[in-house]
Amino acid sequence: MPIITLLTDFGLTDTFIGVMKGVIWSIAPDVKIADLTHNIRPQNVLEGAYSIADAAPYFPAGTIHVCVVDPGVGTARRPMAASIGDQLFVGPDNGLFTLLIEKAKDFPTPPVYMHLNRPRFWLPSISYSFHGRDIFAPVAAHLAAGAAFEELGDPISDPVRIPIPEPQKTAEGWQGQVIQIDHFGNLITNLSRVHLPPGGGVNLHVGETLVSDFVTSFGSRPPGALVAMIDSSGRLAISEVNGSAAARLGIHEDEPVLLAFTPEGKA
Amino acid sequence: MPIITLLTDFGLTDTFIGVMKGVIWSIAPDVKIADLTHNIRPQNVLEGAYSIADAAPYFPAGTIHVCVVDPGVGTARRPMAASIGDQLFVGPDNGLFTLLIEKAKDFPTPPVYMHLNRPRFWLPSISYSFHGRDIFAPVAAHLAAGAAFEELGDPISDPVRIPIPEPQKTAEGWQGQVIQIDHFGNLITNLSRVHLPPGGGVNLHVGETLVSDFVTSFGSRPPGALVAMIDSSGRLAISEVNGSAAARLGIHEDEPVLLAFTPEGKA
Amino acid sequence: MPIITLLTDFGLTDTFIGVMKGVIWSIAPDVKIADLTHNIRPQNVLEGAYSIADAAPYFPAGTIHVCVVDPGVGTARRPMAASIGDQLFVGPDNGLFTLLIEKAKDFPTPPVYMHLNRPRFWLPSISYSFHGRDIFAPVAAHLAAGAAFEELGDPISDPVRIPIPEPQKTAEGWQGQVIQIDHFGNLITNLSRVHLPPGGGVNLHVGETLVSDFVTSFGSRPPGALVAMIDSSGRLAISEVNGSAAARLGIHEDEPVLLAFTPEGKA
Repeated sequence: MPIITLLTDFGLTDTFIGVMKGVIWSIAPDVKIADLTHNIRPQNVLEGAYSIADAAPYFPAGTIHVCVVDPGVGTARRPMAASIGDQLFVGPDNGLFTLLIEKAKDFPTPPVYMHLNRPRFWLPSISYSFHGRDIFAPVAAHLAAGAAFEELGDPISDPVRIPIPEPQKTAEGWQGQVIQIDHFGNLITNLSRVHLPPGGGVNLHVGETLVSDFVTSFGSRPPGALVAMIDSSGRLAISEVNGSAAARLGIHEDEPVLLAFTPEGKA
Repeated sequence: MPIITLLTDFGLTDTFIGVMKGVIWSIAPDVKIADLTHNIRPQNVLEGAYSIADAAPYFPAGTIHVCVVDPGVGTARRPMAASIGDQLFVGPDNGLFTLLIEKAKDFPTPPVYMHLNRPRFWLPSISYSFHGRDIFAPVAAHLAAGAAFEELGDPISDPVRIPIPEPQKTAEGWQGQVIQIDHFGNLITNLSRVHLPPGGGVNLHVGETLVSDFVTSFGSRPPGALVAMIDSSGRLAISEVNGSAAARLGIHEDEPVLLAFTPEGKA
Repeated sequence: MPIITLLTDFGLTDTFIGVMKGVIWSIAPDVKIADLTHNIRPQNVLEGAYSIADAAPYFPAGTIHVCVVDPGVGTARRPMAASIGDQLFVGPDNGLFTLLIEKAKDFPTPPVYMHLNRPRFWLPSISYSFHGRDIFAPVAAHLAAGAAFEELGDPISDPVRIPIPEPQKTAEGWQGQVIQIDHFGNLITNLSRVHLPPGGGVNLHVGETLVSDFVTSFGSRPPGALVAMIDSSGRLAISEVNGSAAARLGIHEDEPVLLAFTPEGKA
C-alpha cells in the first residue's frame, strides 16, 4: 500500500487536514499519510512548488503526493494528476508542479498528466472552495486503493508552468533572491553550489548587510555569528548561528541577494 | 480496526498530543490516529462543538472521536462516551457534543450516552488536569481494541447541552454572527443557504462594512475583492480574495452579521 | 513493529518533519510514527531534555524516540543511540538525554550508549545541517526494521550530560524556577510535590506576584483566579483559570520561583 503525503496552505487551525484524512481512509483504509507541511504561505503557488520538489525525493517509489495551494479553486482551472518519475502527484493545474516537471526531463520515462474530470473518483458532492477534500483527497485514495492512473480522466499535454526566478549572471558574480525563510529564520536563496567560484571567496550582499563568512556548518561559529552555508537542500542560505537571520536583518522573501566573487574567488 | 481522531484545545507546543498517542497505541497498537485540530481556542467548548459536528461526517462508520475542550477538568463534570449514528465520541460531558446530539434526531437509531465511571478502562493513575491522557485516550483505545460500548460505565440520559447561537429573523432579513475565523481569515457565520432568499439579492453588514458581492467561488473575483459565499461546510462566509477578511475588517468571533434582503431578494 | 516518535525544534512551517517520515517509511514501511512536539524552542537542549523524559513513559516497551535539538550539528559532537529501560533513543550526544540517564539509575538493567559511526545505517549522502534526516531518522528506521542495537556503532561510556537546574533549600522553603510555559500559559516549575510541606500551607512568589491559593484542579476556582497546583507531570505549576498566567504576569522561562512555607506549613 503506497504512502499519501499532504502539502497545503490550509494551516493547522481548522479541521481541513483532519477531514482530508477521513476522506482518504474512508476509501483506502490501510494507507499511511504523512503531512509534508500545511504552512505554505496562503495562495503562494511558487513556495508550494519549491517545497514539493525538495521533499518528494525522500519518499519511496509509488508515493502519492496531494498538493493543494489553490487560489483558483472553483474556477475553470483544471484539477490534475501527474505521473513523474516513480511517484504520483495530485492537485490543481496552476504551476504547483513546475519544478517537478523541469526535473522530469532527466528521467528515463516521460511524465504523464491527466485532467481529473471523472466524477466517479470524487466525493458525491463538490464544493466551490475545498477541492482538497472533494476531489484531490479522494482521487489520491482511489489511486492508493488500486485505481489505474490512466482511468482518472483525459490526458493533458500542456500542464501550467509558472516562472521560476533564476539567478542572473552579473559583472561581479550572481544576482539571486531569498525564496524562503525557514522556521529558524534562515534565509534560503535560489543560489546554490553551482554559483560558487571553484576557489571559494564570495561576498554576499543582502539588504544593507555584507556576509562574507562562508562555513560548512553552524556549529563551527559562535552563537550570534552571521554566516553563509550550503543548506541541506543544496541551496545557499544566510544564517545567524543559534538565532534568526530573518529577524536580525529584517529580510523577507523575494529580497535580492547579490553574490559577488572576491578577487580570490575570481582567480 | 477503527480510526481514532483527536480534537482538542491543547495546541502543538507541548507533548500532550504525542503522549495521548502513546497511551492509545499502548492499548490498541494497530489503530490509525488522525488529528482533527488541536487549535480550538482554549476552553472554547462552543468552537469545539461546531468543529466536531462539521468534521465527523467525513470519517467512516465506527470511527471513535476523542474530543477534549475541558475547562471543568478535575471537577464533578462527568467524563462521557456517546454513540451517535454509526460513530462513537469520547470526552467531557460539558456540551461539546451538543450539535451532534441535535443532528441525531434525524438518525434511525437513538443515541446512547455512557458515564465513564469504570476505572478499568482508564490509566492506573488519574491526574486532575489531563483527562485526555488519563481517561479519554485509554477509553477510546479500549473501544478500538474491542471493548463493548455498554461496558464503559453507567448509561446517562441527560447529557449537557450548551446554547447554540441561532440566527434571528428581522424585518430586513436575518441577524446572525461570526462563529469562527479560519486559517485564511475567512469570517464563517452561523448563516447558511436556508437564510438566503430564493432570488438571490442580499446585503451583508458586518462591523462598519457592507458586503454585497455574493459569489460562488473566490477565483471569480480579483485579489483584494471582498465577497460573500457559501463555504465548504454550507455556511455563509465573508472573505477577501487571496487575503484575510478578518485582518482587513478587524472582525473577531461573535461579531454580529446582518443579512438584509435587497428589494430584488425580497421579491 | 515498534513505534517511532519524533521530538525536535524544527517547527511545522517547513517540510523537515514530513521528509523525515519519508526517510523512515522508505526503510521501515510498516512503522507507526507519532509526533511528540516540533516546537521545542530553537536550540534549547534543556527543554528537549525535560520533554522527552516526561513523554517517553507513556509509550510501550520497544518504542524508538528520535530527538533532535542539535545546535552542534555538523561539528564533532557525536550522533548517538541509547538503550534506557525498555526503550531506545536516537539523537545528538549533547545532553538531550540527561534526565533519562538520571532516571536509568532506578532501572534493573544499566543503559547502553552507542556512537552512531557506521554509515551503512545512514542515508548515502550526509548534509552538514540536517542529521535528523540523514542519520537519526534512518538509524531509527533500521532499528525498527530489525537492526541490532549493538551493530549501530561503537559503545560509548561518557554520554554528555547538561546541568539540570535543581531547587535550592532556603530559610523560607525552596528556590526553584519556571522551566516551561505551556500552550495555555501555565508556568511549569522545577518544584514538585516533594517540596511541599506535609501540612500544606505555602506561598509562591514569582516576579512581583504572590500566589497562595493552592488547588487540586482548575475547575474549582472561577475564571481569572490565579492558582498553584500540581500538574499532570507532577510539577508545581502556576495557572490562571481559563486564562494565561504567563501573559498576565509577564513571566518567561527561567524566572525564579520562591516557595515559602507559611507558619502552618512549617508546623
